[in-house]
Amino acid sequence: MTPPDNLKTLILEAQRLLLICHVTPDGDAIGSLLGLGWSLRKAGKQVTLACPDTTPTELQFLPGADEIGPARPEALAQAEVIVILDSSDRERIANQYAEAPFLAKPVIVIDHHVTNVLFGDVNWVEPTAAATAQMCAELIRQLGLPLDEEVALCLLTGIVTDTRCFRTSNTTAEVLAAATRLIEAGASLADVTERVFRDNSLARICLWARALGGVQMKDRVIWTEVSREMLKACGAGTRDTTGLANFLDATRDTDVSIVLVEKNGKVEASMRAQRGVDISGVAFGLGGGGHPQAAGFTRQGTLAEIREQVLSATWAALREQGRA
Amino acid sequence: MTPPDNLKTLILEAQRLLLICHVTPDGDAIGSLLGLGWSLRKAGKQVTLACPDTTPTELQFLPGADEIGPARPEALAQAEVIVILDSSDRERIANQYAEAPFLAKPVIVIDHHVTNVLFGDVNWVEPTAAATAQMCAELIRQLGLPLDEEVALCLLTGIVTDTRCFRTSNTTAEVLAAATRLIEAGASLADVTERVFRDNSLARICLWARALGGVQMKDRVIWTEVSREMLKACGAGTRDTTGLANFLDATRDTDVSIVLVEKNGKVEASMRAQRGVDISGVAFGLGGGGHPQAAGFTRQGTLAEIREQVLSATWAALREQGRA
Repeated sequence: MTPPDNLKTLILEAQRLLLICHVTPDGDAIGSLLGLGWSLRKAGKQVTLACPDTTPTELQFLPGADEIGPARPEALAQAEVIVILDSSDRERIANQYAEAPFLAKPVIVIDHHVTNVLFGDVNWVEPTAAATAQMCAELIRQLGLPLDEEVALCLLTGIVTDTRCFRTSNTTAEVLAAATRLIEAGASLADVTERVFRDNSLARICLWARALGGVQMKDRVIWTEVSREMLKACGAGTRDTTGLANFLDATRDTDVSIVLVEKNGKVEASMRAQRGVDISGVAFGLGGGGHPQAAGFTRQGTLAEIREQVLSATWAALREQGRA
Repeated sequence: MTPPDNLKTLILEAQRLLLICHVTPDGDAIGSLLGLGWSLRKAGKQVTLACPDTTPTELQFLPGADEIGPARPEALAQAEVIVILDSSDRERIANQYAEAPFLAKPVIVIDHHVTNVLFGDVNWVEPTAAATAQMCAELIRQLGLPLDEEVALCLLTGIVTDTRCFRTSNTTAEVLAAATRLIEAGASLADVTERVFRDNSLARICLWARALGGVQMKDRVIWTEVSREMLKACGAGTRDTTGLANFLDATRDTDVSIVLVEKNGKVEASMRAQRGVDISGVAFGLGGGGHPQAAGFTRQGTLAEIREQVLSATWAALREQGRA
């Protein structure tokens, strides 16, 4: 895994950098943003950290999480280089800046999503990396940038969250070796897992009881739905559905799992697929995207309508892929 | 982590070894047994693999799993050395042999349980190891014994199961480094996680829906119960309760989680504790044992009786430990 030479040069020579991660940021987005950000700062550079949305509660323990905010025009004006992390296209960063001044600066894209549209001036996209944070760790290592406990904690959080603690099928020896180096640099894996995974509540348990009670399975697809009524009855939020798709994904004799969540007149779908199956196309076709084994979309409609659409598209994809 | 010198000598010099793991074997018991067993065989030694109980279905993919059986007297008669794995006392290996002939042979104990009573002639007990398989990997490394794909797969399974895929608080950089070496030796982490964790079924999902529906929480203890009726209604077995205690353990604002399962007139309790809390004493006092953060027991009584006993003992322990 080697960053392009012009990427290294741009980063080493820039004094003022603007780092941006994607909307509704997850652990890899925030972990990459902060990890690379702190390392560059500790190397003496001025770094602005931007994200269109607020940092989720369970990631606010990361150093610097409180300073991440929507991009300001001044930050763009001052920056010599823009680095966009974990984002496959400009929509993922909510088109935060007017196009002309944005494109007047060199834009570096660092991402591990196979669906990346290569929208930067320099694009480093590694679909075999398990997390963008893993790529940032490698970049820091190859550039000899500072790696201390703070940097390591942020990057380890990115790797741990995107691999569900090394459980996804893209967790290679390189991923574990990268995590080992981060722990050796001072990051506590136990702290990370406790902060990011120890997040259940009675409301969430109530919601899971109902969601699991409604699980259905047909033709190698397993799915469930979370309605506004269920959320309300349990006092739960849509965030409490996190993990449900992975739980269903661990069901024997299934190829695809789907969780549909009602949200402001739209439906948010989380999809998971077994190795050998690719559901990124189904998600893309319904207005979303992602990885072959984990993808999703948000779409206008009722639960019944979206269920019909996503099940038809999934079964069609399974037939095309020779699974049914 | 260093094995005692006399342990190394005994193993290197023996030509015929009897390896034994504990009753109701888990991934670490079977993984250690097979991993060390295959390595010793590939070094030219004769190895008998014994376990009082059958290998769980999800571990039967491991090479050699089908030959593990209850110990035969001939195996004991022929062995020059007995190696007992992952077992804290002789009861854990079901006192498989009459005491006199058993004790006439050198007995090596390799274990990571802090409650180990040091019942061997040579005891290598490392409570900081996350798995006995991690110790076996280190032993193999230090002795220069063969480490190929088969050996690595078995040992990786031991580490992955005992750490719930690197999620337990004892997952150190050494654990990840050991796992990295095993993957580099040819073991597939994705295969292991898919085999051992991809074990849900509609019956299990039904059971979880009901078990989560009955969760209670009081004074920093969260618990639920699984009755025979619930198992029957879902067509589930007691094995389908695996993971429930860990799920509850991930609940904010709790110190201890407890899952009680009705089983043949007895109740089986799985307990988990947060870092800083030690429930191994509670489990030990009720006839079981384990680690500070994960322990359990099986005890005669009704669900209501055992619930009363374990809750009282747990709250008392929390008071003693200054948590309540």
